[in-house]
Amino acid sequence: MTEQRRRRPGRRPGSLDTRGEIITAARGVFAEKGFDKATVRGIAREANVDPALVHHYFDTKEGLFVAAMQFPVEPSVAVPMILAGPREEMGERLIRFILTVASDEDRRAPIIAMIRSAMSNEQAATMVREFLGEAVLQRLAQGLGIDPIRIEAAFGQMIGVVMLRYIVKIEPIASATPDELVALLAPTLQRYVDP
Amino acid sequence: MTEQRRRRPGRRPGSLDTRGEIITAARGVFAEKGFDKATVRGIAREANVDPALVHHYFDTKEGLFVAAMQFPVEPSVAVPMILAGPREEMGERLIRFILTVASDEDRRAPIIAMIRSAMSNEQAATMVREFLGEAVLQRLAQGLGIDPIRIEAAFGQMIGVVMLRYIVKIEPIASATPDELVALLAPTLQRYVDP
Repeated sequence: MTEQRRRRPGRRPGSLDTRGEIITAARGVFAEKGFDKATVRGIAREANVDPALVHHYFDTKEGLFVAAMQFPVEPSVAVPMILAGPREEMGERLIRFILTVASDEDRRAPIIAMIRSAMSNEQAATMVREFLGEAVLQRLAQGLGIDPIRIEAAFGQMIGVVMLRYIVKIEPIASATPDELVALLAPTLQRYVDP
Repeated sequence: MTEQRRRRPGRRPGSLDTRGEIITAARGVFAEKGFDKATVRGIAREANVDPALVHHYFDTKEGLFVAAMQFPVEPSVAVPMILAGPREEMGERLIRFILTVASDEDRRAPIIAMIRSAMSNEQAATMVREFLGEAVLQRLAQGLGIDPIRIEAAFGQMIGVVMLRYIVKIEPIASATPDELVALLAPTLQRYVDP
């Protein structure tokens, strides 16, 4: 019976485990070394698999991080999407994108978990800092041709509002409509991203 | 020896314990009921002391909360201080005040602890929401005659930047000088507090 299952074409129970084992290994290595110093090779070694298999499943180290942390945004997709479109509507695009992600509890939960970890220990803070910096903020700053500190100020505005709206749940910001928040916040974000 | 100590005028070892017992009781009651529903009477009952003694030590329920949470800012002092002075310099005063508090590790630690608690459980979030709303944000909004959502947006900007600078420690915002941060952020805050 077991032998039969193994032979059935298209069913590879081992593959699911392998993917899971890579993810488990990746969580350990990212937590220990941070995003910069972790390598696909080192994670593959930890998971007892060939590095090629890691690339097969997750493409890049960044893709593996996104999967391991259940990060709800794929920066290699999201950043170009935000950069596309009129520059003068960038502030509005940014806030609408963040509100779309944050309003979905399943996508919000892993972000909150990451922030909480970063607030609790230095290793998690390093991991968040390096990933966020390389995968998101530097790319946005380069794409816009502005000083990274301006993207950080914009990002600070957005995470602060997400915390007050969805975690502290203080009124009136917790019940404001997306359009009200766009009117309130888009000009701030636009000022930061303007050259 | 012990008797002598008790009788020595001006030394009241019992008082220190009583204050500590009130604080311990207050932490429990605030955590359980939130800031709104907690009462000085209820906390006094929990600590087995007369409510007058609670007022003697901590003046108001807000003062007791500030002491119990080791909150590094006394809103009844800080809010009038921020509201005083030229309206057109309000944005700069706000960001300089927050940076002064946050740059001192001893004052920053209890704020971080409160945010972390609020992110971890609903009861702590309720406590933070009610205290922050009543003691800080509503007073600022009323003093300025603006919609509270605008103070919340300003506050969101400031806590987001504090997190990126002092917890995530991402560059360049982590090493920026206070003057650079004022130039970057004061116009945003000023826009929110302008009527």
